[in-house]
Amino acid sequence: MADAAPADPQHLAEAVGRAMFDRDHASQMLGLTLDSIAPGRARMTMRVRPDMCNGHAICHGGLIFTLADSTFAYACNSYNVNTVALGCTIDFMAAGKEGEVLTAAGEMRQQGSRTGLYDITVTNQDGKIIALFRGKSYRIKGDVLSGLNA
Amino acid sequence: MADAAPADPQHLAEAVGRAMFDRDHASQMLGLTLDSIAPGRARMTMRVRPDMCNGHAICHGGLIFTLADSTFAYACNSYNVNTVALGCTIDFMAAGKEGEVLTAAGEMRQQGSRTGLYDITVTNQDGKIIALFRGKSYRIKGDVLSGLNA
Amino acid sequence: MADAAPADPQHLAEAVGRAMFDRDHASQMLGLTLDSIAPGRARMTMRVRPDMCNGHAICHGGLIFTLADSTFAYACNSYNVNTVALGCTIDFMAAGKEGEVLTAAGEMRQQGSRTGLYDITVTNQDGKIIALFRGKSYRIKGDVLSGLNA
Amino acid sequence: MADAAPADPQHLAEAVGRAMFDRDHASQMLGLTLDSIAPGRARMTMRVRPDMCNGHAICHGGLIFTLADSTFAYACNSYNVNTVALGCTIDFMAAGKEGEVLTAAGEMRQQGSRTGLYDITVTNQDGKIIALFRGKSYRIKGDVLSGLNA
Repeated sequence: MADAAPADPQHLAEAVGRAMFDRDHASQMLGLTLDSIAPGRARMTMRVRPDMCNGHAICHGGLIFTLADSTFAYACNSYNVNTVALGCTIDFMAAGKEGEVLTAAGEMRQQGSRTGLYDITVTNQDGKIIALFRGKSYRIKGDVLSGLNA
Repeated sequence: MADAAPADPQHLAEAVGRAMFDRDHASQMLGLTLDSIAPGRARMTMRVRPDMCNGHAICHGGLIFTLADSTFAYACNSYNVNTVALGCTIDFMAAGKEGEVLTAAGEMRQQGSRTGLYDITVTNQDGKIIALFRGKSYRIKGDVLSGLNA
Repeated sequence: MADAAPADPQHLAEAVGRAMFDRDHASQMLGLTLDSIAPGRARMTMRVRPDMCNGHAICHGGLIFTLADSTFAYACNSYNVNTVALGCTIDFMAAGKEGEVLTAAGEMRQQGSRTGLYDITVTNQDGKIIALFRGKSYRIKGDVLSGLNA
Repeated sequence: MADAAPADPQHLAEAVGRAMFDRDHASQMLGLTLDSIAPGRARMTMRVRPDMCNGHAICHGGLIFTLADSTFAYACNSYNVNTVALGCTIDFMAAGKEGEVLTAAGEMRQQGSRTGLYDITVTNQDGKIIALFRGKSYRIKGDVLSGLNA
């Protein structure tokens, strides 16, 4: 039997984060860690592995996007309403390199009853901006903790 | 000593595709295959593995982006001029599901002396559109076959 | 007393187009014409006037966007469900010049129960692509012909 | 004979702003004012006129884009290097209404030797966010003050 969802928004966000990460095999496969989650916010980290790079030790842009997109997913689902990505834009500012630790910090810019907008900034361990990501979200039926999905 | 680059545009594109794929560890890690490449065009395929999915057997959007972004990279580098992604947009139309085979078909919409625009369409094995991706490219120094990078 | 909305989708789209254009003061101010409308599609034309240009007789990109955005609005409202723009991307391919006649052709790529995606291509009188526009739409309450709005 | 361009970056930006606005007939036609300009930054204002609205007194999204796009142009040309827009994204957060005074504040996020990225935020007189705009720029030949254009 499922426990009741926490009433406190911060506890709820943390419970959502744990539940999502548990079944988020893609983020696990890439070694992402969920460093923090709060209502409308999340922060994740990815170490750039050799198998994420090209022959010049430059990280594949798709995996930088994946880090940002995961962070977006945690941020926009943090209210425990099932939410999907409608569309995203990413602008690449600098290369991510093998061995670097990239951090994606996401925050809600707008959240209406159905649609939302979130900005995610990816930086490396020196604080250099690697990419700027903007995602539009859309709330569907169900909640995260009950495990239902549209 | 490196062989001369082929003079024929189609042969050149194919040589570029082989050289890029050889050092594209991220695409290899995800099991992508380069099905075809031609001047300004490329087609790649990805089977959605369990480790690309969440608990509902839905493929992570970041990996759909990665498939499209790889295809974009092959298409815009097919002229053997080193080219990087400036920025991309993706719109998710339908979920990609575990076990499905997704195909990304990319084509050049514009290629100037420095910047270019490419459209990549991701479909599943039934021809259903999964995502629409649009990428802006930027030519840097060097060529692909010589292995130099900016 | 309002007439009933036409049952035929094409007649309905045309009635929507007339009703929208009648109150679309911005498109009128810019001299746009609605050349055709059909379910999920619209086509509009704009002549580039001197007061739309900079000192080099190049049309302001914002007005090219406005032409595309109007066309998007007619296309996504053509089903007589009040629909607004969530967000748009535009890529500028070539300059629009004073005296040129620009045509925007819009078509639906996806239309769900709430959200939709539309592609609008802006060309000049020679068929040259001036801009590519992609818009995400969102259906709100009310219908166009009854004059209600959210 | 042209005066020499000011050496001080702030004076240079202001001289660029005056020269651009002088020939920017579209911004003038729409009643935009350039409130401030500095290296990599600009701020413009637009009062929403009746002829910018639909029948529900809601400002046309294209004209909100135009306000943001003008601000982007001033910000990215402020260094006196001719710069054009490659592509832009806009997300609409709230309606702009007739009679409101909208302010667009633009700032550089990245400026390389050729390409740049700028964020423009449009707010109304109450500080409410109306739209978020992100523009990619590209430097071409010539400088603004000499009046040359590519």
